[in-house]
Amino acid sequence: MEKSRIEKQFEFCREIDKEKFIGRQTYLTDRTRKENDAEHAWHMALMAVLLSEYSNEPIDVLKTVTMLLLHDLVEIDAGDTYAYDEEAKKSQKKRELAAADRIFGLLPEDQREKLRGLWDEFEAESTPEARFARTLDNIQPTMLNAATDGRSWAERGVRLSQILGRNQNTGRGSETLWKYSYENFILPNVEKGRIKNDQRSD
Amino acid sequence: MEKSRIEKQFEFCREIDKEKFIGRQTYLTDRTRKENDAEHAWHMALMAVLLSEYSNEPIDVLKTVTMLLLHDLVEIDAGDTYAYDEEAKKSQKKRELAAADRIFGLLPEDQREKLRGLWDEFEAESTPEARFARTLDNIQPTMLNAATDGRSWAERGVRLSQILGRNQNTGRGSETLWKYSYENFILPNVEKGRIKNDQRSD
Repeated sequence: MEKSRIEKQFEFCREIDKEKFIGRQTYLTDRTRKENDAEHAWHMALMAVLLSEYSNEPIDVLKTVTMLLLHDLVEIDAGDTYAYDEEAKKSQKKRELAAADRIFGLLPEDQREKLRGLWDEFEAESTPEARFARTLDNIQPTMLNAATDGRSWAERGVRLSQILGRNQNTGRGSETLWKYSYENFILPNVEKGRIKNDQRSD
Repeated sequence: MEKSRIEKQFEFCREIDKEKFIGRQTYLTDRTRKENDAEHAWHMALMAVLLSEYSNEPIDVLKTVTMLLLHDLVEIDAGDTYAYDEEAKKSQKKRELAAADRIFGLLPEDQREKLRGLWDEFEAESTPEARFARTLDNIQPTMLNAATDGRSWAERGVRLSQILGRNQNTGRGSETLWKYSYENFILPNVEKGRIKNDQRSD
């Protein structure tokens, strides 16, 4: 017998609890531990509400928030891929697509299509909401890294060129937030040597 | 010199990272540890998007989601008060009001008023959004407790009368979700003895 609509919805709601087990590389501000995907998504969702005024283009805030809340659910199956792990990034897309099929597939059809559509849109950065969500997805960990004296960057020997490459689209969602992040989070850590400066012209 | 608008906003965004350190009494579905406030808020925000169709009254989903994202920020200063800790609950309101003044006070005035207003509304359960948010705030931990074989209830010797008292307003936001929660999460755990049945008439 097929499950009822509400049973499918609650099965999904229980399943997504697993996002709390998916660790990221960013230290929390007290430096005791690194954050997980659920905490990261919560943080960005609230930041989207507060910072939407800086979007380059007008955005639907609920759509953006929903996108941010769900954007890492695929990592329940596919795991977190560190931004500067080039080997893991090769298989990332395939692992995440299979995860999206399974996880969003738990939902009733209309909600499956809606949520999967938002995830696809986020991945493709094809709308103002997706571009702004991506901006926050880059700026939130940068803010935390800066708040912890660049610990995650320093531990991994991250170079400025890697950060600039990673952030090449950050300004597409919000020039203002990218400029703020570059001047207040990234540059001071280059000056302190927490980020390796491989961009010197001198 | 007064901080600029964007500086105030980022100060708030950094400060709220501390919500990730505030532990709750609910075990995650893998039973390895208990969840924290940020994870709890993330979980409910996504549940609000998926389950809003069951609200007794029409609701503004973005308003509800925002309320859920911020509703526990006061616990950064005031700590989590366990639902069945009667002693701690006596001083809870005073501690939380002082916390709201400080934490929302970091924001620019317009956003301070908006977010503080949403928190006051949630506390007062004075609107359809607040009532539905409160319903989810009760149902999400109940769902997790049921998914972990009632561990948190059993460890603390929670009685059915306490749960029913705690949930006396849960149906005000959604009769459908309260009925589902009672029949699928609570009753099976009474039958298994994980919740103490002090309501027997026999």
